[in-house]
Parts: sequence; C-alpha cells; structure tokens
Amino acid sequence: MPDIDPSPLGAVDSSLADGPSHYYSPQDEAYMARALELARLGLYSTHPNPRVGCVIVKDDAVIGEGWHVRAGEPHAEVNALREAGEQARGATAYVTLEPCSHFGRTPPCAEALVRAGVKRVVAAMQDPNPQVAGRGLKRLADAGIEVVCGVLEAEARTLNPGFVKRMTTGLPFVRIKLAMSLDGRTAMASGESQWITGPAARAEVQRLRAQSSVVLTGADTVLMDEARLTVRGDELELDAEQTALALKRPPLRVVVDSKRRVPLRAAFFQAGPTLVASLLSDKAEYYSLQGHELLTLPEKEGHVDLQALLALLAERGVNEVLVEAGPQLAGAFARQGLVDEYHFFIAPKLMGSTARPLLDWPLTLMSEAAELDIVQTRLVGRDWYVVARPISSQAPTFS
Amino acid sequence: MPDIDPSPLGAVDSSLADGPSHYYSPQDEAYMARALELARLGLYSTHPNPRVGCVIVKDDAVIGEGWHVRAGEPHAEVNALREAGEQARGATAYVTLEPCSHFGRTPPCAEALVRAGVKRVVAAMQDPNPQVAGRGLKRLADAGIEVVCGVLEAEARTLNPGFVKRMTTGLPFVRIKLAMSLDGRTAMASGESQWITGPAARAEVQRLRAQSSVVLTGADTVLMDEARLTVRGDELELDAEQTALALKRPPLRVVVDSKRRVPLRAAFFQAGPTLVASLLSDKAEYYSLQGHELLTLPEKEGHVDLQALLALLAERGVNEVLVEAGPQLAGAFARQGLVDEYHFFIAPKLMGSTARPLLDWPLTLMSEAAELDIVQTRLVGRDWYVVARPISSQAPTFS
Repeated sequence: MPDIDPSPLGAVDSSLADGPSHYYSPQDEAYMARALELARLGLYSTHPNPRVGCVIVKDDAVIGEGWHVRAGEPHAEVNALREAGEQARGATAYVTLEPCSHFGRTPPCAEALVRAGVKRVVAAMQDPNPQVAGRGLKRLADAGIEVVCGVLEAEARTLNPGFVKRMTTGLPFVRIKLAMSLDGRTAMASGESQWITGPAARAEVQRLRAQSSVVLTGADTVLMDEARLTVRGDELELDAEQTALALKRPPLRVVVDSKRRVPLRAAFFQAGPTLVASLLSDKAEYYSLQGHELLTLPEKEGHVDLQALLALLAERGVNEVLVEAGPQLAGAFARQGLVDEYHFFIAPKLMGSTARPLLDWPLTLMSEAAELDIVQTRLVGRDWYVVARPISSQAPTFS
Repeated sequence: MPDIDPSPLGAVDSSLADGPSHYYSPQDEAYMARALELARLGLYSTHPNPRVGCVIVKDDAVIGEGWHVRAGEPHAEVNALREAGEQARGATAYVTLEPCSHFGRTPPCAEALVRAGVKRVVAAMQDPNPQVAGRGLKRLADAGIEVVCGVLEAEARTLNPGFVKRMTTGLPFVRIKLAMSLDGRTAMASGESQWITGPAARAEVQRLRAQSSVVLTGADTVLMDEARLTVRGDELELDAEQTALALKRPPLRVVVDSKRRVPLRAAFFQAGPTLVASLLSDKAEYYSLQGHELLTLPEKEGHVDLQALLALLAERGVNEVLVEAGPQLAGAFARQGLVDEYHFFIAPKLMGSTARPLLDWPLTLMSEAAELDIVQTRLVGRDWYVVARPISSQAPTFS
C-alpha cells in the first residue's frame, strides 16, 4: 500500500519495463476476497489513507493476516508479515492495493516484502495515482518476485472510491444524503423535518458520516435544524471495535457559510472543531481562537465556489465527502455536476405539495432531467434506501 | 361462487346453524393453491364478477379443473364438474370462493355440487357479502357434504380486492397510478411529461388498466396529454389467450369533467364509449348520441363529489378503479381518503424543483403527513415500481 502524500501530485517516472502478470487462479480470488474482507475493517478509520488488507499464504494455509488501521500506523503488509514471521519466506502475499515503494510516514512495504523473502505477490489494483502506479510492483519484480495484478480489481476500487478519485482527479468522492418522503419532500414549508425517516435509516446515515473524511452542510441547515452532524457511537449500530475506531477518527465537519451567518454559539460549533468555508477573510483569528478554521474561497455566482472548496479539501487528503444540506446547497452541488452518488432515504409517507422540494434545481424541459443509475435499493426499517449515480453522458454541466 | 347482483344489498338471513369446519391438511392447501392459480387466469376478464378457480380431486388425483372466464358464462365449479364427469361422485371440490346458492344468470353452483355427489367441499373464503355469506356452504352441509372454509383465505381475498370491498362497503377498490421522478415530480412546469418512465413500466400500467373495471381520469389530463387511457393489446406483454380475454372486456373509461370542458372531438372520446362525470345535467342526449354517458353528480367544494361517484360506480358492479390523473384530481382522491393503494412508478431521474408536484395536497405539519405501508417494490426495466397502502389509523379524513 502506498504511503499517502496528501497531494496526489509528485513527479515520478511511471514507465515500467515489464508489466505484472494477469494470470491467476480461483484460489487466488478466494484469498483476495479474504484480504478485501480485512481491508473493510478499516472502513471507518484509515482516512486519509485507503483501506487495505493483506493475506500471506504458504502451502495452501494462511500464515499471516493484516489490515491498515490508521494513518501513521503500520500498513496492511507489515501487519501480515509480522504475524507470518519467518514462515513468510517462499510464501505468496495477497494485497488489495499495490505495495508502496517510497518512504512516507512508514518505510516502503515493497522493501519489507522483498526482505521477508516472499516469492509471489498478488495485488488487486495498482496505486491509483497515475504518476506512481506500478513502481511498487516493479520494485518487487526487480527483486525476482513473481507479480500478479488485477485480481478482484473492481471490488478493490469500490472499497476506496474517494482515494481513487482523489488520486486520479484531485477531487474527493462526493455523496449527497437526501431524506425524503415518497412525494420527494424534505421538510414542511415551515422547515419542520424531524423525523422524516426512522431510526434504522438514521443509523445508516451515521455510518455514512463515519466512513467520510468530511461531512459538509450549509448555514441554513445549521441555523434552522440546529444540526451538529456529529458521529454518535450509540447510534452507529456497529460492534465495539468498529465503534471505537470510528470515534477515534471522526470526519471533519464543514459548513459552507458564504456570508458567515452562523454564530459561534451554534450547536454545530459547540460540538467540536470545524471548518467554515466563507467568502469573507477577516476574523479568521477569532474563529481560530475558538478552535475552528475559517477558509476563504473564491466566489461563484454570489456563493462559495464549491468545486474550489472540494479541490482544497482533496489537497488536504479528504477522500470522501458526505453532503447533508438543504435544497439550496444540495441543489447547487447537483446542478454543478459535483455529485458522485445520491443516497436517498425514502420514507413511506406523503408530505404534500406545499412541503419543501428535494433540490433547488429549476429545469424546463424533460430532456434536461438528470438521468441516474440506481446501484442499490434496500429496506432499512420501514424506509427505502436508494443509492444512485448520475449517468455521466447526461450529467449536468457547470452552469 | 356467487352469481353477482350489481348491488350488494339484499335482505337475506345470514344465520347458520352450524359453521363450516376449519380443519385441513397441507394437501388441501396445495390443491387450493392450484385453484387460486386457475382463478388468476380470469384476472383481466371476470369483472364485475370475482376471479374464481376450482379443482376436483379423487384418490389423490386431479379429475377436473375450471375457472370463471366471464360474467354470464359458467362458474368455475361448473367448468370443473364438466371435466370430472361421473368421477365427481365421492370426490373433493376445492373452490376459491364459497359456491353460490341462488339463481342468478346461471343456476346455483351449490346445487350442481350436490347433484354431482361430491362428498367434501373446501372453500378459501365465504362470500364477502355479509348478507349472503355462508348460505352456499350451509346448503352443502345440509345435503350431508363435509364443508371446510378458510384455506389460503388471505391469498383468495388478495385476488379480488375490489369485489370484496364492494360487497362489504358499497365502494370499489381504488388504485392510483403515479409516474414520477425520484424527486417526486410528474411533469415539467410546461406540462411536458412524456416519457418519464420506460416501456416496461408502461406495460405494467397497461396490465393495471386491463384488470380494472374502470380507468378514471380528469379533464386536465384528457385536454393536455391527449390521453385515451385505452388498453392496447400489443403493449400488455401477455400471452395470446390473456391478451384476447383482456381486449374482450376492456375497462370503462371515466372522465371527471365537472364543468364539461372536454370537447367530444378529443382523442379520449374518439377511442370508444365513455362515461362523463359532471355537475351539469343538460346535453345528456347529445353525449348519448355519440355513444357516451353523461352522469350528473352532486357537488362537493365546487367539484364532482368523488365518493358519490365511486358509490354509483359500485352500484353498477365496478370492483376495481384505476385513477390516472394530474396532481389536482389525484390530490383530491388522496386528501379525501379514497385511495386504497398507491402505485408509484419511479424513474431514476431528477426533474428539478420547478416541475409539477405529485399530488395537490397542502399540508402544514409533519404530523399531518400521510403514512403509508409499502407492500411491494420491484424493478421494472430501469424504473422502480412501489405499491403502498395508506395506514388506516392515520388515513386522511374527509376535509
């Protein structure tokens, strides 16, 4: 696994004399599936690093397993090698991401694998950063190790959508959560919105927050709903270990507050350090004294330039962003084509025609409607959880 | 099966000396399941009669099967007895609805079963008309036949929701079809609405129409969308036999046109005889000359009284009504608590915040939101088909 530099930019030669092999057996897939299972244990704790798992196998027996827990701590390969000990000599290592080849916060994993004397390394995918991809595998091949890459690659990519997107585009993966009635309403005209969905849906949202690097909202939501957008251990409905990991690495809470309307006494600020994205630049010290950061951003149509904000967050190592906002801010993300995945929580009720719309997004013609691909639907409690992605060919363009 | 009098009212003594037995075996359930399968063959053709199937079994072998095809033609029991012939003596008859005991358009089935010499009759449910329920079973018991009732009763009721509701309440079962985007919109602000959903969803709607006694719409839909609301054989996606049955007994098309705004040259009228529900009473003859019926109804808040219309339709033998209307008429049915089942066809797209709402239904408080029970969700093509029922305890009351 690569040690993560917050910035995906860095001039490295990506040319490789020989590519890795793509031949592998069903047995290889089975061990990789186990490595992916281990990687998933880091769902709530590895950011800004990717989730990575490793399995070491010798004579058809697993002799070491490891996963990456937290940035700054050992990588998956090192944890697995420790468990394998001397037996690693001549073994095969399955790893869900190409081993890193450079010194970051920890020594390079490729070196560790060479030193341990493994004879074969099977990786699910290359490092997604096109400028370093293949270097770790090349280091292994140069040391005479048989290298295979691409085993369960789609699954491995799905596990780290934000890390992959940040490394390839310099932007985080953006999910938008929308809790709505069957008639597409998010609040009554008065703003009343508690509770549209049931406890099971709210627990699902807690887990979405916990796996994100950033939870992002707007001034209106913070002011009207007294939203804090924190991760609450007792609402996660995870086991004790996963809960503890999630709480040790909570997402950064970001409020888009162009005109700085939210007072520092708001529950959102009282709940811990936050980042305020604003058009204004004075008073930064005042926020800083209270433990918050004021980030001044360029303007776009009278509001904070959201793409510039996302790019800045990615530079700081933010992989996955969860947007939980009212129709105006949510609509701005949608109209500007900045949403990678919609997470709809649909309550089995009708809130009527004067209630607030889902997204502030005026469209005139059917041909302008944003087409989505539904990738998952699932019952959570009495509500429906629908995950959908914009179809890129028809994705809304920057207005 | 009872022969149907259009009106559920008729003074009959419902007292029964001995009730039927409720003891039955898994084998009985298996034969009843087959009888229900046969009954389902009449899904598109029996109205105003219920769908009924019958299986005759002797020495663990099926010796006769029958189902009711069309009103005025033989009942399921008679068809099955014909197939069984002389072998019926000493056999068991499984029938999805209590056999009728009186002369209607055909002679009573209870008599036919007695004459055929069956020794046991297993029914799924009693006649839902509380004033005649049990009379057919009593006639059989009086003749010395062993009678069992209640086998797969829930399934039998589900097959005839409209017939059961009409017989017990004097109103038809009302389904409302709503084709919408994920953000709960049914048309752009301009009225443009073709096509929100895909061909598979439209075929599903064709089958909903075909199984209804009435398809009901409003003047706006007829005027704006040039809607005809006909059943089209090539869009039903049924086999040749079922398609032929559906086309022989198409639903009556009804337009609610309080002020009689729709001209007779509209596509809706050109497509065949219709019923016009209006507040006006003159010009009835003019409609009649063109093959249509003008029905004058009492007024409620400036519009046709919808409950009065439904009651009138039930009196004419209408079991199931499908409402396909714009937000105003659909909203009126919803607000007045006249909807038994919502059929949402949800397209994976976002139509934006200026598009038309699902239902014209102004609500102020979350506590007023109409709670629904989702009874089915299914992917049809790329769209989601969600069937939901109002939770009666919180059902909207007459405003």
